[in-house]
Amino acid sequence: MIASRAGRAIDVVAVSARDRGRDRGLDLTGIDWHDDAMEIAGRDDVDVVAELIGGSEGIAKNLVETALSAKIGVVTANKALLAHHGTALARMAEGGGVALGYEAAVAGGIPIIKSMREGLAGNNVSRVYGILNGTCNYILTTMRETGRSFDDVLSEAQELGYAEADPSFDVDGVDAAHKLAILAAIAFGREVDFDNLHIEGIRHVTALDIAFSEELGFRIKLLGIAEQAGEGVHQRIHPAMVSLSVPISQVEGVFNAVAAEGDSVGNTLSVGRGAGAGPTASAVIADIIDIGAGRTAPVFATPVGDLKPARTESISSRAGRYYLRLMVIDKPGVLAGVTKIFSEESVSVEAILQRGRDPGEVVPVVLVTHDTDDAAMQRSLKRIGAMEQVVEEPRMIRIEDF
Amino acid sequence: MIASRAGRAIDVVAVSARDRGRDRGLDLTGIDWHDDAMEIAGRDDVDVVAELIGGSEGIAKNLVETALSAKIGVVTANKALLAHHGTALARMAEGGGVALGYEAAVAGGIPIIKSMREGLAGNNVSRVYGILNGTCNYILTTMRETGRSFDDVLSEAQELGYAEADPSFDVDGVDAAHKLAILAAIAFGREVDFDNLHIEGIRHVTALDIAFSEELGFRIKLLGIAEQAGEGVHQRIHPAMVSLSVPISQVEGVFNAVAAEGDSVGNTLSVGRGAGAGPTASAVIADIIDIGAGRTAPVFATPVGDLKPARTESISSRAGRYYLRLMVIDKPGVLAGVTKIFSEESVSVEAILQRGRDPGEVVPVVLVTHDTDDAAMQRSLKRIGAMEQVVEEPRMIRIEDF
Repeated sequence: MIASRAGRAIDVVAVSARDRGRDRGLDLTGIDWHDDAMEIAGRDDVDVVAELIGGSEGIAKNLVETALSAKIGVVTANKALLAHHGTALARMAEGGGVALGYEAAVAGGIPIIKSMREGLAGNNVSRVYGILNGTCNYILTTMRETGRSFDDVLSEAQELGYAEADPSFDVDGVDAAHKLAILAAIAFGREVDFDNLHIEGIRHVTALDIAFSEELGFRIKLLGIAEQAGEGVHQRIHPAMVSLSVPISQVEGVFNAVAAEGDSVGNTLSVGRGAGAGPTASAVIADIIDIGAGRTAPVFATPVGDLKPARTESISSRAGRYYLRLMVIDKPGVLAGVTKIFSEESVSVEAILQRGRDPGEVVPVVLVTHDTDDAAMQRSLKRIGAMEQVVEEPRMIRIEDF
Repeated sequence: MIASRAGRAIDVVAVSARDRGRDRGLDLTGIDWHDDAMEIAGRDDVDVVAELIGGSEGIAKNLVETALSAKIGVVTANKALLAHHGTALARMAEGGGVALGYEAAVAGGIPIIKSMREGLAGNNVSRVYGILNGTCNYILTTMRETGRSFDDVLSEAQELGYAEADPSFDVDGVDAAHKLAILAAIAFGREVDFDNLHIEGIRHVTALDIAFSEELGFRIKLLGIAEQAGEGVHQRIHPAMVSLSVPISQVEGVFNAVAAEGDSVGNTLSVGRGAGAGPTASAVIADIIDIGAGRTAPVFATPVGDLKPARTESISSRAGRYYLRLMVIDKPGVLAGVTKIFSEESVSVEAILQRGRDPGEVVPVVLVTHDTDDAAMQRSLKRIGAMEQVVEEPRMIRIEDF
């Protein structure tokens, strides 16, 4: 089937991995083994190298650069490499007329790179956003369904193999940020800019905030959002509250989703599995078939020489609504103090939720603001957090009104 | 932007339409006008013709065939043409080494042809299904939201321009069937087979059935479903009840959605606007950029010579659950009669819903069956419909347990 669709045979001639002895359930007879992966890029019978090592530096980077220099096409699932060195690698690939495929790097099996780069090529994209990390989405979904804490659900996810022993790459938003930086480059025709991306993970999301969110008609998702903002772009990863009536709020568990808004096409959404052997293989094979069939495109849709310089605006200028949860000592004057600070910072309050009274005890108070900017919200948060009656650090979650 | 992404300039050199005088808000200075569209395929300075005429025969077919014969690439939004003559046109295009793009023919702006043909090229697809007609989805959504009748909502949709003066192509399922036949050819590597496709539209869907459906946890959608079935495939368009927990059930209004299930990728879903000037333009331009950039693929993913002959199985062998609504005279023995027929036809009942009693009057009775096959259901329906106490034709809706 693959040969028929590629219009030519695809032969696996060599393979390299750390552990030759590991049983992979595959017969490697007739395929050369290399203990040193770099040797593969030195062979003269190789047209394409698939790099599935990972990491933005070291052997993965060395292998990809060496292959491109040798005019060997590269297919990779390495989002960190693309996020940190995407523009330079695109320059190498396009300069040498060599293919660089990375469908597997973003949203696993969803062919979102191809869809955005080719399928939506006729659109000016104003915004692209998505659920880009299945581990975080699984944790948030399970927290909501069971009412359990982040730490508790994370431990279980680690036992089940859904989360790594060191989960920080996932739960702190770094993995999602790598993917968003790549999507933003394609969407807006700009050089990849991972360094200025705003990143917040999900460690601070609590079961209490999830429950309040549902009560208000929202679902909490770790979103990556890239959007045109004046002369530049916003690129940010953070927990976001999304109305239950917006389709992406219904994407649950390990599934990923990417939404793109184009001037011709309007709103689009693609949903699928974001990780795992099968989805990754699906994407890698699609890239190899494309190369076999001679289908190539500029790495980031726009030829690398035409990419505009990165211009990522500070999150301070993000405008929108905010959810705020305070733990306060229930006594007269607390709300007056909070609303006074908001008033002084020109933040307008849309709703206040106070469930149950318990004079003298600590109770949660939830506030939803009208549209304001992040800078005003951050100033307000600092002042509110310093109030005597506010006994925990205030919890803020951005509301995204798509 | 288009030139940059295509890697070359795209010049519009000639145009043809029925009415030269109509104000299209465009300056056509410098572009040749042809009253006879066929003349465009005779020009020697044309690389690609975009056919947006429509219809499976006549001028559209003539133009596309003439262009392909002259080695002029074709981009079309014509689903009827592809559904009826797709295999023959693919043979012409691939035989002549000419491009035939039709992204706009299925699901408008969603790049589903590219996604399935290239993005999922490494998968054996077991099923593809979708909401393929925005007019029907708009009518069903509005009926559910307002409780109004089909005729009432259709009239309003016609006034608003969401439905044609002659709505039969849409509401009788023919338009969706054209699109499904195309998707099935790509998914299963078979010649296009529109003629044996089972088609039912939405004229018989009532507000009452929509209300019962919601009560049972389902949403009614006009679905196109193509799936592997033994040695052949099922291809069918009909109203279907889908669990509210399945994402496609949440796709509302004029939006389209296509779900594909591949052996590597698992489940995927793409959502977007299915029609209109913008989404159609987005797809047409993407196809033109592909041709400009030299990206081509076999018309139906598998080279036309490798396509298997069509083998569409009768809907009689469709297996699944069924919803049945009867209007019966409320007196003892009715249910006993119905269940006796089901028992004799080996159809097992999962649930019976009877709301309100009104002895001697006509009341609705709803039954949900366990998995059975369509043939047994059709036999049962005939016998139940002939019962003396059953005063209207029974209404059956297939339940799809995705």
